[in-house]
Amino acid sequence: MKVGIVGAGNVATHLVKGLTQAGLDIPVIYSRTLASAAGLAQYASSATVTNATDFRGLPQAEVYLLAIPDQALSSFLQSAVFPEKALVAHTSGTQPIEVLASLAGVETGVFYPLQTFSKEKDVDWKRIPICVEASSAKAEQTLLKLAKVLSGQVVPMNSETRRNLHVAAVFACNFTNHLWGVAQDLLQKAELPVNLLEPLVQETVQKAFQFPPFTVQTGPAQRGDQNTVQAHLKLLQDEPLYRQLYQTLTKSIQTMTENEPFSGKQA
Amino acid sequence: MKVGIVGAGNVATHLVKGLTQAGLDIPVIYSRTLASAAGLAQYASSATVTNATDFRGLPQAEVYLLAIPDQALSSFLQSAVFPEKALVAHTSGTQPIEVLASLAGVETGVFYPLQTFSKEKDVDWKRIPICVEASSAKAEQTLLKLAKVLSGQVVPMNSETRRNLHVAAVFACNFTNHLWGVAQDLLQKAELPVNLLEPLVQETVQKAFQFPPFTVQTGPAQRGDQNTVQAHLKLLQDEPLYRQLYQTLTKSIQTMTENEPFSGKQA
Repeated sequence: MKVGIVGAGNVATHLVKGLTQAGLDIPVIYSRTLASAAGLAQYASSATVTNATDFRGLPQAEVYLLAIPDQALSSFLQSAVFPEKALVAHTSGTQPIEVLASLAGVETGVFYPLQTFSKEKDVDWKRIPICVEASSAKAEQTLLKLAKVLSGQVVPMNSETRRNLHVAAVFACNFTNHLWGVAQDLLQKAELPVNLLEPLVQETVQKAFQFPPFTVQTGPAQRGDQNTVQAHLKLLQDEPLYRQLYQTLTKSIQTMTENEPFSGKQA
Repeated sequence: MKVGIVGAGNVATHLVKGLTQAGLDIPVIYSRTLASAAGLAQYASSATVTNATDFRGLPQAEVYLLAIPDQALSSFLQSAVFPEKALVAHTSGTQPIEVLASLAGVETGVFYPLQTFSKEKDVDWKRIPICVEASSAKAEQTLLKLAKVLSGQVVPMNSETRRNLHVAAVFACNFTNHLWGVAQDLLQKAELPVNLLEPLVQETVQKAFQFPPFTVQTGPAQRGDQNTVQAHLKLLQDEPLYRQLYQTLTKSIQTMTENEPFSGKQA
């Protein structure tokens, strides 16, 4: 199967690396900035790089994966023309499949890898769930087959469910990463080594996937320990942003604990 | 070394288990509720259980570890009497060592294990950092020795630094656990399996300890993708608590991204 890649960011980079390693041919890589596409071609040496949005005169693919930011998608789609009968799929968690309906003469789909991608860190594609949706049964078969080349966990999923999953992923990944950033900043300001928290974080993660997290919640907010909460807020008085995070999260934990008292289970 | 345990909650449970497994003798276990102390004595069969706060007539220990909630500490200390020259240490992240100053004729200290403890889950004491503080050099030596019996990472730390560490731990552990609870709740409401997010969470953790988290932040807030943020807030319109978390965390991420633009590093 030949796969064209549209985009040169983090998702596109890991798609090119993963598909190439799996032995697939990548005939074409598009980026608005030609140099970015050329940068990606180091991983797929036979790829033609382009910044033109008409793909008909270029080496053709059966599937085109659009790995560009949601904000850039609609302007790209306004000028894009793909070879007739190609299958064009976007990789967004939140965009519905219908966003591709304006493309003429092609099949459409969604190919959403549930992962956080950074260029500087390799990923293990086998462990990344890929959520697939398509405009026809035939297109779905093609995308499922492609997804299975990369991943051991492939899930057909409609746009509404995928959007719910994406929101959950923002809480589980983007927001927790931000909190670790805050924690590490606080450690550095106290002149403590940042890896001091690593065993605690590892244990917290392990527990969260062995038990429902709300049932193993610990800490001052869950215990209703107002003295400690107040002491912590005082300590954060010069960090208004962190203080607001602390207050909002504490309030949310306390509301949850009052509504569903799991308090017998931990102290 | 003989160690008395005051308390019968999560921390006390894991202390009794860990110290017994390390071959130490636990002569006495105190709890306000005698049945709770008796429950803990299953792990330390030679321990005398008590709900009396005068420890002088009971089998004596060199070190007493107070593993009771911060809220219960001051009322316990008002009536507690320990054998002369004993070393009494609390296990709180936030209480200063001075909270023990009212105890007459004893050495005092702090023995703070940086971990989240739940009764239903065993922990690996070797990997748990223990922060130690004491009222004299001799008492510090005793607590360091005791801590090293349990853990491979023992850190002398004053009360102010420990309090800063505790706040950081609340962000890194308690708050992230709550967000995973929110994520799993959203998955369940969308009828999706909760383990779908596990590879994403594992990758996020790994990355956060390989790179400064703020530099590998991803997601709609970091990208300034207001359309997706608005779509997510609309999806959360019937979950006011989750909506408020989403807004506060998004605002914090965006403020951080504007102040220290790492945006070249990820998409």
